[in-house]
Amino acid sequence: MPGSDRIEQMLDRAVKRARGSGAPPLLASAIEYAVFPGGHRIRPNLCLAVAAACGDALPQSADAVAAAIELLHCASLVHDDLPCFDDADMRRGKASVHAKFGEPIAVLTGDALIVLAFDTLAREVAPAQLASLIGIVAAGVGAPRGIVAGQAWECEAAVPLADYQQAKTGALFVCATMAGAAAAGADPEPWRVLGAKIGEAYQVADDLRDVLCTAEELGKPIGQDAARTRPNAAAQLGLSGAKARLEHLVATAAASIPECPGRAKLCAAIEAQTRQIFPRQLAQAAA
Amino acid sequence: MPGSDRIEQMLDRAVKRARGSGAPPLLASAIEYAVFPGGHRIRPNLCLAVAAACGDALPQSADAVAAAIELLHCASLVHDDLPCFDDADMRRGKASVHAKFGEPIAVLTGDALIVLAFDTLAREVAPAQLASLIGIVAAGVGAPRGIVAGQAWECEAAVPLADYQQAKTGALFVCATMAGAAAAGADPEPWRVLGAKIGEAYQVADDLRDVLCTAEELGKPIGQDAARTRPNAAAQLGLSGAKARLEHLVATAAASIPECPGRAKLCAAIEAQTRQIFPRQLAQAAA
Repeated sequence: MPGSDRIEQMLDRAVKRARGSGAPPLLASAIEYAVFPGGHRIRPNLCLAVAAACGDALPQSADAVAAAIELLHCASLVHDDLPCFDDADMRRGKASVHAKFGEPIAVLTGDALIVLAFDTLAREVAPAQLASLIGIVAAGVGAPRGIVAGQAWECEAAVPLADYQQAKTGALFVCATMAGAAAAGADPEPWRVLGAKIGEAYQVADDLRDVLCTAEELGKPIGQDAARTRPNAAAQLGLSGAKARLEHLVATAAASIPECPGRAKLCAAIEAQTRQIFPRQLAQAAA
Repeated sequence: MPGSDRIEQMLDRAVKRARGSGAPPLLASAIEYAVFPGGHRIRPNLCLAVAAACGDALPQSADAVAAAIELLHCASLVHDDLPCFDDADMRRGKASVHAKFGEPIAVLTGDALIVLAFDTLAREVAPAQLASLIGIVAAGVGAPRGIVAGQAWECEAAVPLADYQQAKTGALFVCATMAGAAAAGADPEPWRVLGAKIGEAYQVADDLRDVLCTAEELGKPIGQDAARTRPNAAAQLGLSGAKARLEHLVATAAASIPECPGRAKLCAAIEAQTRQIFPRQLAQAAA
């Protein structure tokens, strides 16, 4: 079964559980709405690609941790869109959860998705791997250095840029590569750099999109970095500088891949997947 | 070591981890502030009391799940106090987290505490018990029937009262008794009724306090149920009716305790602990 189908199946099973008997109807609808239809599912696909490169000895564990990472990503989008943060009305081309269901349900949907992610791990992951995978996932999401911490840096007067970006974007990519390796029984530590570099590349691509795309293309508001005086690589390096940085990061990411049975295939997949996140305008500018 | 010291030690270890190197300072302070100093720690004490009654074969697992339940309770208080829910400025006799640190940090503090709870389980619980304990905890907190679902019922036009109260208050007490048993290697299912009845008693006592106490005594705003047209047992049954209901629930709870090595001692502890939550005015009225 292709990785994308495996991810959707596992997400579907988790969401059905959360929507089970006794669930308050609005919360149940909002949980489904926050997860389906998804975006590119970049993090869980990366997780499964690494698991495959490492031999994918326990596919159910890999599917579970990939789905858990996506549930946590969805939770972070729902909370980041809240009025007290980005106050974004659109997400993935439709009304954001708080715009559609109200702020209270949006807060609770994020909370429920976080719990659902860990519940999914407990139900689906092989017992011998469970503690290690939860540790990797919690590090990617919580304090002191996960995506929740990354968002919290936006509340500080003085922000160390590297810490902010590594936590806000990098942490969940690092989580994806390390968890993919661990789910397949490999040592996760050598896979940290790959996740970090892809996370950096994704951040630069996101910065470029914030500058280059229309809100319609992006499915969410544009110009948010300038409006919120957040650092933006395209603004700092210029368009061609940011593009060169992006190419460099993708090459560094590919070069960092540890020796493993599926190394060549994974290299190609990373290059292809990363192209997906390049803004269309950049490809045209390069042509 | 007394149960209360065991709980504080485990909470302290968890909070120190979340405040570790690289943490954004405001988030780190808010996490500490949300957990210390605590309230009565009723749920984790109940969890440890049940574990002790069942023989407490694995005290570290019991401590971890008791602390995880308290972290999740703290997370729910932080989020319930947000402007979009109760908009409460006081909690445990001091400024609520959002009043002190702002709304963005309050949202993120709740998120970080949820993640920290599961991370604590993964680090501290014996591997053979981990999946089962996470399942019990997730059921008490998430959708469809945990405390997040209970809060979400307040967003619905039509609310089935029993579902609402069981989810909003009962679920985490059920979680405490079942997890305490499971942590000690006992079958958790027979311990469900005890948690449910104590949860109901706690709800009635809370309703009475909302009517009888001053905000200063309570450490949080009073009259919230009437202000928000939430159901309140004291308003529905009258003062003496609510008191009789409370006595009946405590007796039913004690009678439900399964056969176990420490049954008599647990009975006495439950009666004593439950007295603690009785409003002072009620004890005087009865005297």
